[in-house]
Amino acid sequence: MKNKLTVYNSKARKKEIFEPIHEGRVGMYVCGPTVYSEVHLGNVRTFVSFDIIYRYLLHLGYKVRYVRNITDVGHLTDGGEDKVSARAKLEQLEPMELVQKYSNMFHEMMAIFNTKSPSVEPRATGHLIEQIEMVKDILDNGFAYEQNGSVYFDTLKFNDKYKSYGQLSGRKIDELFSETRDDLKNQDEKHHPSDFAIWMKASDEHIMKWNSPWSVGFPGWHLECSVMSTKYLGKTFDIHGGGNDLKFPHHENEIAQNIGCTGVEPAKYWLHSNMLLMNGKKMSKSDGNTISPYELFTGDSPHVSKGYSPMVVKFFMLQSHYRSTMDLTDQALQAAEKGYSKLMEAAKALDKMQHPGNGNETENNKKLLTTIDNIISDMNDDFNTPKALAGVFELVNFINKLKDGHLKYSDITNEAFEKLKETFNQFVFDIFGLKDEVGSQEDGLFDGMAELLITIRNEARAKKDWATSDLIRDKLLEIGVQLKDGKDGTSWSRI
Amino acid sequence: MKNKLTVYNSKARKKEIFEPIHEGRVGMYVCGPTVYSEVHLGNVRTFVSFDIIYRYLLHLGYKVRYVRNITDVGHLTDGGEDKVSARAKLEQLEPMELVQKYSNMFHEMMAIFNTKSPSVEPRATGHLIEQIEMVKDILDNGFAYEQNGSVYFDTLKFNDKYKSYGQLSGRKIDELFSETRDDLKNQDEKHHPSDFAIWMKASDEHIMKWNSPWSVGFPGWHLECSVMSTKYLGKTFDIHGGGNDLKFPHHENEIAQNIGCTGVEPAKYWLHSNMLLMNGKKMSKSDGNTISPYELFTGDSPHVSKGYSPMVVKFFMLQSHYRSTMDLTDQALQAAEKGYSKLMEAAKALDKMQHPGNGNETENNKKLLTTIDNIISDMNDDFNTPKALAGVFELVNFINKLKDGHLKYSDITNEAFEKLKETFNQFVFDIFGLKDEVGSQEDGLFDGMAELLITIRNEARAKKDWATSDLIRDKLLEIGVQLKDGKDGTSWSRI
Repeated sequence: MKNKLTVYNSKARKKEIFEPIHEGRVGMYVCGPTVYSEVHLGNVRTFVSFDIIYRYLLHLGYKVRYVRNITDVGHLTDGGEDKVSARAKLEQLEPMELVQKYSNMFHEMMAIFNTKSPSVEPRATGHLIEQIEMVKDILDNGFAYEQNGSVYFDTLKFNDKYKSYGQLSGRKIDELFSETRDDLKNQDEKHHPSDFAIWMKASDEHIMKWNSPWSVGFPGWHLECSVMSTKYLGKTFDIHGGGNDLKFPHHENEIAQNIGCTGVEPAKYWLHSNMLLMNGKKMSKSDGNTISPYELFTGDSPHVSKGYSPMVVKFFMLQSHYRSTMDLTDQALQAAEKGYSKLMEAAKALDKMQHPGNGNETENNKKLLTTIDNIISDMNDDFNTPKALAGVFELVNFINKLKDGHLKYSDITNEAFEKLKETFNQFVFDIFGLKDEVGSQEDGLFDGMAELLITIRNEARAKKDWATSDLIRDKLLEIGVQLKDGKDGTSWSRI
Repeated sequence: MKNKLTVYNSKARKKEIFEPIHEGRVGMYVCGPTVYSEVHLGNVRTFVSFDIIYRYLLHLGYKVRYVRNITDVGHLTDGGEDKVSARAKLEQLEPMELVQKYSNMFHEMMAIFNTKSPSVEPRATGHLIEQIEMVKDILDNGFAYEQNGSVYFDTLKFNDKYKSYGQLSGRKIDELFSETRDDLKNQDEKHHPSDFAIWMKASDEHIMKWNSPWSVGFPGWHLECSVMSTKYLGKTFDIHGGGNDLKFPHHENEIAQNIGCTGVEPAKYWLHSNMLLMNGKKMSKSDGNTISPYELFTGDSPHVSKGYSPMVVKFFMLQSHYRSTMDLTDQALQAAEKGYSKLMEAAKALDKMQHPGNGNETENNKKLLTTIDNIISDMNDDFNTPKALAGVFELVNFINKLKDGHLKYSDITNEAFEKLKETFNQFVFDIFGLKDEVGSQEDGLFDGMAELLITIRNEARAKKDWATSDLIRDKLLEIGVQLKDGKDGTSWSRI
């Protein structure tokens, strides 16, 4: 039998067998974007990674409730200004107009990368009452204090009781002096530098604010996620995910808030995706070492030699494990483009192939079945997409050999062939979420017309009718179709 | 000069010149869908109508803030159950999972019909605090009373002071005994049958509920819109729109709430779109006289002879004025299909046409300029799309005549030709929001290949090379392209 699904639990710092709290069901919360600007490529990587995890859990037959929030209030800049409000001022929009604009763009980008919509996509501003309730509960439990209309989480008191503050990120409370970046301006109101705001009093000029028992104010960013995960998944749920950069302070504080409110750990497994680098270095606007998704698609950037399609970029992402850093280079994207197109060609070929019905249990048959088993084992090993993808490419070799006649159908059983077909399609389309970028119906028309023109051209050449043969080549070139004469006949490609 | 924009104000029961409250800016609120099922075709009509109004206001140069809400709580069935909760139970989903599912489907449908996203799309559950605040204000002003944890709007008291309850819908308060459909079960708690709930106490088994000063409960459906329009557009804004069926009780109650809270009328202009009929009768599930958008696209319904594309359906919608009923019949859709394709062909032809640069101010020139002026006048006349569309078809005649040589370029000035081009494209694409359903790039490739094949076939026929000529015709037919030989040469179409 194949191995069971294991996941690397960041909190336990080891791989653990995945056993959901309720049999057959999985609750998963992933911290979504703060919608104040275009989504970064690094964030896209995070959301694509968790989409593949979501898809794999669905593939395994779990009923998954996947919650990914939208942060539209409370996420502050280093200067203590609300990110949404600050940008709205710049763009001369109402904050919620800005939220609408960038939420739409985020959803478009997620669709471009062919990710599935989460089951629930709650907004922070949609859960004010629940947030106020949680602040009350934390205050009642003694793990928070009010100062001038703001409420702060008392990390020292929490740590005294639970001894666990800093456990996720591996930080010690004594060393945490001024690391919390989100409320430097209120440093003086806090009892300890590691304390953090769960409710903040708003200044007069602040736009996004609500009535609360403490002040007209707004919720702390960390609090929002605690509230929305609890509301839709319960006090304790299976998986909490997010980018590595959220481990501290965001996730650390989420855990403290949840325990401070309910007394129990929120998530059984904490999963963190790693960073996206470019040319070996951290992406950074100030260095110019950055590229947006659209720049990547159009090629309008000094970092790439040309544009790469979304599915090529996604293929490239699959080539790294979600917990490893991933290094974006032009060379790697070029290789991904070749790999992706090889994969799609194999998919099309496989679609037309049929086993004649009688085959033998040969060495090749055994090898094929082992390859399939390994793909599943690799994916079960903490969602190891690069290994599983390599396995899928071994299937591509089988497909191409069968197509070319280098492997005979009689050397594999009908059953193994069907398994090949099923596994290949499941992994490529359902689990990795790749798709053919040219619509198949249109494709059929192009293929048909191009093949017809090639046939006529071959006949013309046989008859030494160079006028017709040249007309076809030149006219096609004019509309962007290039013919290539090779030893296996003539092929065509779009330019 | 052309006429000014006038709109039919349902509240004033007459057309009025449109003058926004703040020069250059328009605030528009349209009641959005309750996301508990697939969107009905009738609702699609409403949202397409207001999308065209939105687009036209933008075209006129206004900075428009267009708010269209999503109702995800508080809209009750006749039996007093929350529509979202009731359906969630059936589908075994958490209410917010259901909301996510049908919001996504709604957005997809809006994209299929090529409508623009509103500036803000607030959700009812995202504005609980604001709703509670408005209930408090209405209570403070004496226009509501509490009964067993629920709060009711006091229509009699309101009417005593403002004498205006029923003004929008033309109903008299004395006649309103049991017409309010949303809270029959609480009839006994109300002082008068026309009173309505603005906050409702939730039963124990009710899922979607929040803390409030009166009970753990949920907001009334009518209240939500009052709150969200005020929050994003201010106490008084320019346009409030919605389907005719919302006039009473929904909009009537919105007005009462807004005045009861702020003392002023919420909207300067009330715009209502009319009903969609099918085969002359009201659409109704129980009669089977209904069709969903998808059934219309696929043709999977006894009411249509085949599927119609979304742009054909939209073209059909443009053929009725938004305030008139619109009768969907197979025949009308077939006609719309022809009209739409004639329009797109003209657009493509126009795209390639260029005025040689010298023309005269002839009668035709004058006629062209008058046609253009009339299109604008018709659209300014309460957004009269059927008339404006008819005018655009007069432009199609000009375009086709120019193309065929029945009208000479020298008979119209370069300036008039540019105006034709601009007006045609603005109306067809920007204002009506139609689009060519086949991507233009792909189109170019198809066109190029098909033309090349037709050229080769003509040459083959001239040489009496019937083998090649038949090969081309047969092979194209096989992949779905039909050649038609006419007196003006050979044309092709997809089948």
